[in-house]
Amino acid sequence: MFKKILIANRGEIALRVIRTCREMGIKTVAVYSTADAESLHVKFADEAVCIGPAPSNLSYLKMSNIIAAAEITNADAIHPGYGFLSENAKFSKICQEHGIKFIGASPEMIEKMGDKATAKATMKAAGVPCVPGSDGILESLEQAKKVAKEIGYPVMMKATAGGGGKGMRAIWKEEELDKAWESARLEAAAAFGNDGMYMEKLIEEPRHIEIQVVGDSYGKACHLSERDCSVQRRHQKLTEETPSPFMTDDLRQRMGDAAVKAAEFIQYEGAGTVEFLVDKHRNFYFMEMNTRIQVEHPITEQVIDYDLIREQILVAAGVPISGKNYLPQLHSIECRINAEDPYNDFRPSPGKITVLHAPGGHGVRLDTHVYAGYTIPPNYDSMIAKLITTAQTREEAINKMKRALDEFYIEGIKTTIPFHRQLMDEPDYVAGNYTTKFMESFKMKDPN
Amino acid sequence: MFKKILIANRGEIALRVIRTCREMGIKTVAVYSTADAESLHVKFADEAVCIGPAPSNLSYLKMSNIIAAAEITNADAIHPGYGFLSENAKFSKICQEHGIKFIGASPEMIEKMGDKATAKATMKAAGVPCVPGSDGILESLEQAKKVAKEIGYPVMMKATAGGGGKGMRAIWKEEELDKAWESARLEAAAAFGNDGMYMEKLIEEPRHIEIQVVGDSYGKACHLSERDCSVQRRHQKLTEETPSPFMTDDLRQRMGDAAVKAAEFIQYEGAGTVEFLVDKHRNFYFMEMNTRIQVEHPITEQVIDYDLIREQILVAAGVPISGKNYLPQLHSIECRINAEDPYNDFRPSPGKITVLHAPGGHGVRLDTHVYAGYTIPPNYDSMIAKLITTAQTREEAINKMKRALDEFYIEGIKTTIPFHRQLMDEPDYVAGNYTTKFMESFKMKDPN
Repeated sequence: MFKKILIANRGEIALRVIRTCREMGIKTVAVYSTADAESLHVKFADEAVCIGPAPSNLSYLKMSNIIAAAEITNADAIHPGYGFLSENAKFSKICQEHGIKFIGASPEMIEKMGDKATAKATMKAAGVPCVPGSDGILESLEQAKKVAKEIGYPVMMKATAGGGGKGMRAIWKEEELDKAWESARLEAAAAFGNDGMYMEKLIEEPRHIEIQVVGDSYGKACHLSERDCSVQRRHQKLTEETPSPFMTDDLRQRMGDAAVKAAEFIQYEGAGTVEFLVDKHRNFYFMEMNTRIQVEHPITEQVIDYDLIREQILVAAGVPISGKNYLPQLHSIECRINAEDPYNDFRPSPGKITVLHAPGGHGVRLDTHVYAGYTIPPNYDSMIAKLITTAQTREEAINKMKRALDEFYIEGIKTTIPFHRQLMDEPDYVAGNYTTKFMESFKMKDPN
Repeated sequence: MFKKILIANRGEIALRVIRTCREMGIKTVAVYSTADAESLHVKFADEAVCIGPAPSNLSYLKMSNIIAAAEITNADAIHPGYGFLSENAKFSKICQEHGIKFIGASPEMIEKMGDKATAKATMKAAGVPCVPGSDGILESLEQAKKVAKEIGYPVMMKATAGGGGKGMRAIWKEEELDKAWESARLEAAAAFGNDGMYMEKLIEEPRHIEIQVVGDSYGKACHLSERDCSVQRRHQKLTEETPSPFMTDDLRQRMGDAAVKAAEFIQYEGAGTVEFLVDKHRNFYFMEMNTRIQVEHPITEQVIDYDLIREQILVAAGVPISGKNYLPQLHSIECRINAEDPYNDFRPSPGKITVLHAPGGHGVRLDTHVYAGYTIPPNYDSMIAKLITTAQTREEAINKMKRALDEFYIEGIKTTIPFHRQLMDEPDYVAGNYTTKFMESFKMKDPN
């Protein structure tokens, strides 16, 4: 087993990993930018190394600094968390070359799954259902038109290097294609330095449902059921739940089988997530695979009493998995609490937290790196806490979430607590009747 | 279902009940003494009524004030929590007379189980194993000597109205009996206004293991397995766990059966706890039955995913139980965090909390009514929080507790956090090798 793990990340996920390491008796090294010196992940690690100034490219993305920190502190493994270097093939390779175990996917695996067109081709070969579309990158506008005609409108054009909705266009008829082709490529080139585009059938009334998988280094994989992440704003997940209110035993079996097949086909090692779009007829289509821990992993932990970070560490250390799949025994919901003003178009609201009272009690879990007196720096993602409630039924989990949100006091900054509080009363949410389009028609009510 | 419940208690248990009521959509009324105006139970209830000054006999024990508060606010039920009026037959009867449902035992049941000698006679009649001893109250010193000779020394003399170790004496040989008889009776008379004494065989190397039961209003009862509460200081529980490290499947079956038999024999309605002493040969003996929710109920909730307060409310409203027993699926530990100085003979340490950082993350639950800026009044019990960790195994639950205790910062007052932190490293505790005598040889280590 590893003696010391460096966590190449910040905020709640760094703290999350440190907590499990402590429980496993593994020493931890936090790294931090000068903007993060006061974060809890720095306070709770056994050692902490400053790796540069606030901009991520000078600290959390600066591979040489992170490797140097690992070598100085004699860490034998690096956990990358999510974001930053977690799906960076080069970093995974550099760790390998330095004899430091990267607790994540191999460089080859990241390359295979990181490029969306390649990932889709791989999944097709594995027999996993994929959205009908172009076979890889579109060579020309003419080819785009031909493919669109074959698969039928509406179609979706997407940047192969994309993410966060950049370089993505919905096209409802051929007349719109010329303009979309140009503007999406320009946007992708600016955002990713890569204007490669591919096309897919647009799934109407889609749900984003993902399957958690864990693979070991002996080629065996299992799944830990689904998470419904359909409530998104501009492709950012806001709240997630498991089981999905749309799930049936049959659909779970089919999606679970597909996800395990995908993981075993590529000999996937570690925790990963196979994201699917599910249409209203309960057809599902491979979207992408995330070769890392997800923000929303706690809801899976809650319903199957399983520590996923622990499992990542065990698998990375060569421990085999049992191969048994896990089905949800309870219902769990996560609300991402962001330092944003929901009454002002979710504008970021960094600053000093003057008062913080955390909710608690039965069925309530809170993962956060902030505290009263902490100043949220403006440099990073605005998520400051994950509030998770778990109960026997979905109705009870929602009621518990309302009660926990009502107890959660944060003063000094604006947060998305009022958004979640309203969401939990929204009839379509309460009925489990939502798709990825849900937020398009959502309006905050006047607080008074 | 009830529309509005008044909680005739304070602190964490009042908040605990309010939380479940909110989740069930039931309105709540908090009552409070002037010393408790700033407590969270007051802030989180829908309504709050001041019922008098700090001394309990003028507020939390003042039945007329509580009934008046219930009538003014139109509450249709009263939850008494633990302590105070929770096992007061007169209060239960007054509630009945006022048409207010008392969420607890009937006056008859409380009387039957509240007097220890009567309780024991009832349990004997139900066929539940009891510690050999006097049949009810000892009439004289001569009778005490006769009984002691029959059951064999060592014996234990106890006050029939007793609790908290008052009026209790261990007697190892006949020569000690005269003196013990006098002093215990004097002590009992002073403490309870009742000097009735009874005698039992002293159980060597005893463990305090209790079985949680729930009975409905149709005569059906079930058990929710055990809690090991052997770690006690002066008869006050400090930490509890489930399953008991001493438990076997066979013992759980026998104890569970006995507890259900006891509950059904007396047609027990509500949540109750049958406390047993277990000797080193795994013989178990009925000790007493608590006709109320226990402080340590959360560990049971954690291992069977069951909200006991909800169950109390449902049963009180006439909902039948399924009758199925619940076995622990996980391991859970509770540490009672008291405002006491463990380095100074656990002397109470009331005062203002200047800093409070709550632990969180996977498998951690915190039940508390205090917060940064709150002043702990000197008038009440010193417990300020219950920290509960839950994991797949006992070892993991202990490791999680250590990690959570390390994260728990309270400044401004002394707390028992350092005591629990040391306990979790104590070899006998870690080995599960402890009896109710454990604390007699426990010494705090120098903090430096």
